[in-house]
Amino acid sequence: MDIPRLSSFDQLAVGQRFRLGTLVLPRAEVVEFARRFDPQAFHMDEEAGRRSMFGEMVASGLHTLSAVFGRSVDSGLLADINLGGNQMEVRWPAPVRPDEVLELSAEVVELRPSRSRADLGIAKFRYIAERQADGVLVLDALITHFLRR
Amino acid sequence: MDIPRLSSFDQLAVGQRFRLGTLVLPRAEVVEFARRFDPQAFHMDEEAGRRSMFGEMVASGLHTLSAVFGRSVDSGLLADINLGGNQMEVRWPAPVRPDEVLELSAEVVELRPSRSRADLGIAKFRYIAERQADGVLVLDALITHFLRR
Repeated sequence: MDIPRLSSFDQLAVGQRFRLGTLVLPRAEVVEFARRFDPQAFHMDEEAGRRSMFGEMVASGLHTLSAVFGRSVDSGLLADINLGGNQMEVRWPAPVRPDEVLELSAEVVELRPSRSRADLGIAKFRYIAERQADGVLVLDALITHFLRR
Repeated sequence: MDIPRLSSFDQLAVGQRFRLGTLVLPRAEVVEFARRFDPQAFHMDEEAGRRSMFGEMVASGLHTLSAVFGRSVDSGLLADINLGGNQMEVRWPAPVRPDEVLELSAEVVELRPSRSRADLGIAKFRYIAERQADGVLVLDALITHFLRR
């Protein structure tokens, strides 16, 4: 894995793709996150999961989203240039089960210099997570970043 | 505060609004969430916050989103009918500071019976959080729920 550490918005190009490594949501963390932020039974209990429309216990989508975002921050890719963000669009096409391995990547989908600030660019990244076992897409998040130029 | 506990998708009507009470993100929890899921300095350190574009330490937007969603689950409104969800659109028009009081509400913005399953309806709720002190909107999340009929 060789993730660059960008020093300016201007190093980005639409279509660039960065592999961000793998991620696992351990069962204990799935339950812990759900207790705090999404206490629905199918995220905390095996039996309730089996009776749910998922047919098994699955992670809260907010947990998947937060863990993928956290991994992207940890990667350092935007560490020196990310000033913040103000919106995202998220889809969870399939559920995430505890302990399964996800492959993460980020793709540059839109770049736009700020009109009001010459030292700022606005970038949309598409963050995706796929199950390593079968390639199924489990998270697709379009996130807007304000980046230093 | 009198939050109903719905028993069917069919009890909903577009334009209904539910007040979900108040929420505070305590400073220690802001730092803890950021360490786990969004370890950017302006979410964890006062001095880094002052140097950031926010001018102060602010909560991770993912923390605000997760906490608001958790509160909505705790409210019990959809506890008996929510089967899951698969997408959301989120905007954070202004940052959330530790320890400030937020007012939460949810509004029904779209209702659609499922075409494939007679026992299912698809509802879009707009969840918003506003600062109690000045009414400024800090979170605006359009969330899709699959609900029992």
